[in-house]
Amino acid sequence: MGWAIALHGGAGDIPLSLPAEGRAPREAALRHCLELGVAALKANRPPLDVVELVVRELENSPCFNAGKGSVLTTNGTVEMEACIMDGNTKKCGAVSGLSTVVNAISLARLVMERTPHIYLAFDGAEAFAREQGVETAHSSHFITPENVERLKNAKEAKRVQIDYTEPIKGAIPSSIGDSQIGTVGCVAVDGHGILASATSTGGLVNKMAGRIGDTPIIGAGTYANSYCAVSATGKGESIIQATVARDVAALMEYKGLSLKEAAAYVIERTPKGNVGLVAVSANGEVTMPFNTTGMFRACATEDGYSEIGIWPSGINGDLEYPNK
Amino acid sequence: MGWAIALHGGAGDIPLSLPAEGRAPREAALRHCLELGVAALKANRPPLDVVELVVRELENSPCFNAGKGSVLTTNGTVEMEACIMDGNTKKCGAVSGLSTVVNAISLARLVMERTPHIYLAFDGAEAFAREQGVETAHSSHFITPENVERLKNAKEAKRVQIDYTEPIKGAIPSSIGDSQIGTVGCVAVDGHGILASATSTGGLVNKMAGRIGDTPIIGAGTYANSYCAVSATGKGESIIQATVARDVAALMEYKGLSLKEAAAYVIERTPKGNVGLVAVSANGEVTMPFNTTGMFRACATEDGYSEIGIWPSGINGDLEYPNK
Repeated sequence: MGWAIALHGGAGDIPLSLPAEGRAPREAALRHCLELGVAALKANRPPLDVVELVVRELENSPCFNAGKGSVLTTNGTVEMEACIMDGNTKKCGAVSGLSTVVNAISLARLVMERTPHIYLAFDGAEAFAREQGVETAHSSHFITPENVERLKNAKEAKRVQIDYTEPIKGAIPSSIGDSQIGTVGCVAVDGHGILASATSTGGLVNKMAGRIGDTPIIGAGTYANSYCAVSATGKGESIIQATVARDVAALMEYKGLSLKEAAAYVIERTPKGNVGLVAVSANGEVTMPFNTTGMFRACATEDGYSEIGIWPSGINGDLEYPNK
Repeated sequence: MGWAIALHGGAGDIPLSLPAEGRAPREAALRHCLELGVAALKANRPPLDVVELVVRELENSPCFNAGKGSVLTTNGTVEMEACIMDGNTKKCGAVSGLSTVVNAISLARLVMERTPHIYLAFDGAEAFAREQGVETAHSSHFITPENVERLKNAKEAKRVQIDYTEPIKGAIPSSIGDSQIGTVGCVAVDGHGILASATSTGGLVNKMAGRIGDTPIIGAGTYANSYCAVSATGKGESIIQATVARDVAALMEYKGLSLKEAAAYVIERTPKGNVGLVAVSANGEVTMPFNTTGMFRACATEDGYSEIGIWPSGINGDLEYPNK
């Protein structure tokens, strides 16, 4: 037993050749967010506050596909979505189709706490944001030049592009050295076994307007109960079909598997190249499996273990494991 | 083994005193839709076609809260949602926030079959409907005088009203004899064990604009895999938190329960008064449990069993069981 935290910045086909300028700012952002979360857990902040805090920070970083830095729909707009869930009470909140809200994850929490509903989307969610007075911004806050370029490349290749897809052949690499950017999420548990999960995303490059992915779907991209908290990332449609986040918890609850066994089972069964997740259990275990080439991820536990990684641990010799 | 079909027209606090004029048209609609589904299964139509066909017919009936007859948001508008899933392939489609599409369930199927996505909502879903040329109608097609009255009553009582809530004290009863109307769904399996599920709804009376419920959420209101097909109804927020439809399947898959045991376990664990479901298994079993006062429901199996009911079988002496 003890606190634990894990976060991710998306999973996908992250090439081992990813240049330093594509890696360094993301690793720095993960480290910063991990430290923020650890400090909050040490200060006895509730896990629900911790995951919200960490995901807000990830949303505010243009390195990831959420909040500032969200990828663009086929119309060139942002449609952000997010979800938060408290494992103890199973209370949860979700939002989709946001175009002006700086921190989608905090609006999801307000839906959970201040409405009779769980999930608000598009105009109704934006109207609720105005009513609640949350911070909003002009589209120029969210849309980065890199994402304008990513959309252009995806359109030229006529494809809808998931996080960290291999660069399109012949496309001009974006200024950060790749065509890739990922969903964010955080899970945390405190020393009393109270769990929480949060996930936030801009979705897919060149997605149809109105498309909803796995992130805001309780049981798909986001889930927490009294056994574990899970945040998934990857190809949203596969994650929805496999009810990834709920299945990790269901395998613990119904089949008696450990957190690691349950998460490995779900990842194994989901089509290769499609999914990664971070999860913590009530007794402070942590796991971060994926069946993609890589997943930007970080974790720490009360007993002093800490890890920041991109590719599987065997093949990323130069990765940092600060306190392994 | 053999085909089986089950459908529902919503669960909730359906008073035993429901007058004949509130019962008769709904029972007739259930019987008609059951016959339609049975004929389609006997004609070897794929279960996915069968559930779509039956739910379309339920949407076209003003007796239920889906399609024509959808209840109204707090703004007096309709925002319909629907979901369809094929158990064999786990392919699925969902829509939310429709205001002009006559058959939301068929648009959900088109999302599944003609887009790279699973789920489209609001303006994007409406734009897709136009592009696909599906039948649309003016809001006057969907909005019934009964629902205008239901919204007025709910607003006066300052409440968001789930399907079949006890009539508001002092409210003028609607012309069909009650203040109640419910979500629709259908599950079917053929003689080869191929399963499908479909659910469609107008949501909650006086819901906030933009509110998404359990119906379109894979694993909450709708789910099918190779074990079973499930369509749930009731308080959407409870169904989302309990991942009701996926859990029935997960209990069969991970805990080895039968369909009836799995469904009963899920219903037992969900707060009383909140949920009902219809489900069929790959080998042609059927179950229709609920923890509400009643659930409009009907089923038939290849071996000749058939049932149409509202309240629990013990306390509804005057109910029909045509071939029990």
